[in-house]
Amino acid sequence: MIPPVKRPDGPEGQPTELKSYDEVYAELPLLHPTPRSWAELAASRLPEFLADHAVCEQQVAMYGLSLAGYYPDDAELVERAAALAAEEVQHFRRVVAILTKRGWPLGGRRKNVWAQSLRARIVLGREPMTKVDRLLFGALVEARSCERFTRLLEEIDDPEVVHLLADLGPAERRHWEMFYRLAGRNTDEQVLAARFQGWREFEADLARGLGTSPAVHG
Amino acid sequence: MIPPVKRPDGPEGQPTELKSYDEVYAELPLLHPTPRSWAELAASRLPEFLADHAVCEQQVAMYGLSLAGYYPDDAELVERAAALAAEEVQHFRRVVAILTKRGWPLGGRRKNVWAQSLRARIVLGREPMTKVDRLLFGALVEARSCERFTRLLEEIDDPEVVHLLADLGPAERRHWEMFYRLAGRNTDEQVLAARFQGWREFEADLARGLGTSPAVHG
Repeated sequence: MIPPVKRPDGPEGQPTELKSYDEVYAELPLLHPTPRSWAELAASRLPEFLADHAVCEQQVAMYGLSLAGYYPDDAELVERAAALAAEEVQHFRRVVAILTKRGWPLGGRRKNVWAQSLRARIVLGREPMTKVDRLLFGALVEARSCERFTRLLEEIDDPEVVHLLADLGPAERRHWEMFYRLAGRNTDEQVLAARFQGWREFEADLARGLGTSPAVHG
Repeated sequence: MIPPVKRPDGPEGQPTELKSYDEVYAELPLLHPTPRSWAELAASRLPEFLADHAVCEQQVAMYGLSLAGYYPDDAELVERAAALAAEEVQHFRRVVAILTKRGWPLGGRRKNVWAQSLRARIVLGREPMTKVDRLLFGALVEARSCERFTRLLEEIDDPEVVHLLADLGPAERRHWEMFYRLAGRNTDEQVLAARFQGWREFEADLARGLGTSPAVHG
């Protein structure tokens, strides 16, 4: 067993004893754990992982802004999605700064099969369920990212990257919970859980076929 | 003559004697001044102006993030565009907060003929000139926004909105200068000026047909 990582001091919070992977996983809505072999691969190809990670942060910031644009009448969603976008832009800049300092290339746009397949499951034009689906999609993106970061933390000892992921993992956890809570505001609890179950199973099926590239969702 | 507005104290800076419209206009690359009648219209329909303004901030934040995604190998552009996006997301949140507090609706996506026509002028797939065009487009969006905010400041006395626009006008000025500087990094000064001249004339032709709706670029 790898002991929990002690997070270094940093600007985003006090040092905290990090939870173990198993503890984190137990609180996430995922139905398929990423194999440790993925983390070993990503740890051995950290420049590629980080370049992909930067793009993920950029994409989720854009997704947050898009959500705000889709639902201008939903003041709570607009403010939450904009705050999320603001946070993700800063994460993007933080990852880019690490890449730049190390002379590692930023990757730019690339195919994220997992995210594309998941997003394609949103049924458009069926409000109010399209909004619910968009939020459940967001919840799963954040949950899986949190899980992957936690998995990778078991395998790396690069202090700067440990620090980064130890900050961002909890942020992703907050975000999936926020998306799920927003999805449930006007939806019966059981209906929401059933709908989310469909999403969770679909995501797990996708995840079972992955784990073979060093990308965040690869 | 309307005297320069005294900007109230605020979190974004020290109180400053604002420049007059004529002073601001003289430093912008625009070839057609917005008529005062537009500002009178926008001032009389402030809820619509602000709702549109919020969407402009959201759109330009997304544009900044897109730029970073298009040019991952250009570290300076990535960091500048991401910093711009971070700033515009905060402007978006600030405008949304004013709308929400007042019970004024946020507008959501709408047709911005000026921006669409301008953006359609970017010739894709002709690097390195496509990048130059994308930056010159950004420069004109920021310059025109700065000009419109300054024009509107002459006509309104709502302290909160005066404060907002008095902060954001100078930010837009910084942004157009930044876009133009980035466009000129690898381009001969005369070539750049000539190319920008084409953009400026095109924009002025668009602007001549506008000024009849309370939108930021309407």
